[in-house]
Amino acid sequence: MQIALVVYDRFTALDVVGPYEILSRAPGAQTVFVAERPGPLRTETGALALTADQALSEVPSPDVVVVSGGPGQSALMDHGPLLDWLRAADATSTWTTSVCTGSLLLAAAGLLAGRRATSHWLALDELRRFGAEPTGERVVFDGKYVTAAGVSAGIDMALALLGRIGGDDLARAVQLGTEYDPQPPYDAGSPHKAPAHLVDTLRARSRFILTQSS
Amino acid sequence: MQIALVVYDRFTALDVVGPYEILSRAPGAQTVFVAERPGPLRTETGALALTADQALSEVPSPDVVVVSGGPGQSALMDHGPLLDWLRAADATSTWTTSVCTGSLLLAAAGLLAGRRATSHWLALDELRRFGAEPTGERVVFDGKYVTAAGVSAGIDMALALLGRIGGDDLARAVQLGTEYDPQPPYDAGSPHKAPAHLVDTLRARSRFILTQSS
Repeated sequence: MQIALVVYDRFTALDVVGPYEILSRAPGAQTVFVAERPGPLRTETGALALTADQALSEVPSPDVVVVSGGPGQSALMDHGPLLDWLRAADATSTWTTSVCTGSLLLAAAGLLAGRRATSHWLALDELRRFGAEPTGERVVFDGKYVTAAGVSAGIDMALALLGRIGGDDLARAVQLGTEYDPQPPYDAGSPHKAPAHLVDTLRARSRFILTQSS
Repeated sequence: MQIALVVYDRFTALDVVGPYEILSRAPGAQTVFVAERPGPLRTETGALALTADQALSEVPSPDVVVVSGGPGQSALMDHGPLLDWLRAADATSTWTTSVCTGSLLLAAAGLLAGRRATSHWLALDELRRFGAEPTGERVVFDGKYVTAAGVSAGIDMALALLGRIGGDDLARAVQLGTEYDPQPPYDAGSPHKAPAHLVDTLRARSRFILTQSS
């Protein structure tokens, strides 16, 4: 099972490292970080560089596609080489997935039209403009398309996906191995739970520069 | 505020990327990945390379130290250059922290003797052998020493730490920005919750090759 994790300049690290950490523990999984060009790519802070080991063109037909989100996504919404690859990889994938604003790239490639999907809570309206049907859920399955909410949601998405791929006991074993028994010290992880003034602040100062293309 | 994230060959990615994702969002934070020698370092699967941008020697006195865990930890339990750096950095740090088996490195450096601390659930006995007092908690504060349980626990640790550093509202805003509203599809994230046969399997096949040095 080949799992291609798609990154690009100014991706968000946890978006893709969460699913990597879960999915790479499946027996027989071959995870590979891919980008248009191989080499180190930096997150939006500039403080973390992760290596894309292969070019998109070298990984034409992965079994699982995981598209990272991050501020760099906005510059790629009409970028032919990436969108063409997503469409081609999707034609043969078993699962096509995304975390955070990665779903906007799937949507821009035309893969989410008419489908239930999700994204970072600040990007749900944008997702709708591409013809997807945003839901308020943290992880959304629609056929072989699996989308996750913002940043940290990729962990939950990957565990749910792993359960579908390898069964509940495999997913539970990986949850135990990664000691994923979350105990957040605050309860502010969604706009429905966080104090209103913080929701307003994040809306106003959003780091997400959404595309104007639609 | 300089935050040094310590990595090494065969580290576990989520251990360090969780805290990076949370702490790097603090205003004024300068996060830097450090290793004995700068350059790309691979996780235990070999499938992910992350760049250490600076040598330990170039970052002598960070405000916050975060030590990653991972299978590579076992080869470093008597490695002078790392343990010496940890002791020296700790002498001036505001916070000295770890995720997963990173606490064994802090313990090997002599920094956790007599202190309450935690580690990956499979490593708690080893932690005790170094004179620490393991607890069953997910995140343990003992003075300026903050240790987290396995792999994913670094996210909870970093949010709790961010609250201490910058206040509750900052931590809540980062939780909202990273949409950290965990909804694991299974409830098997600790040995107290997972089915016994999975706990036994992981104990038997542990990927953690613990040091024999004590």
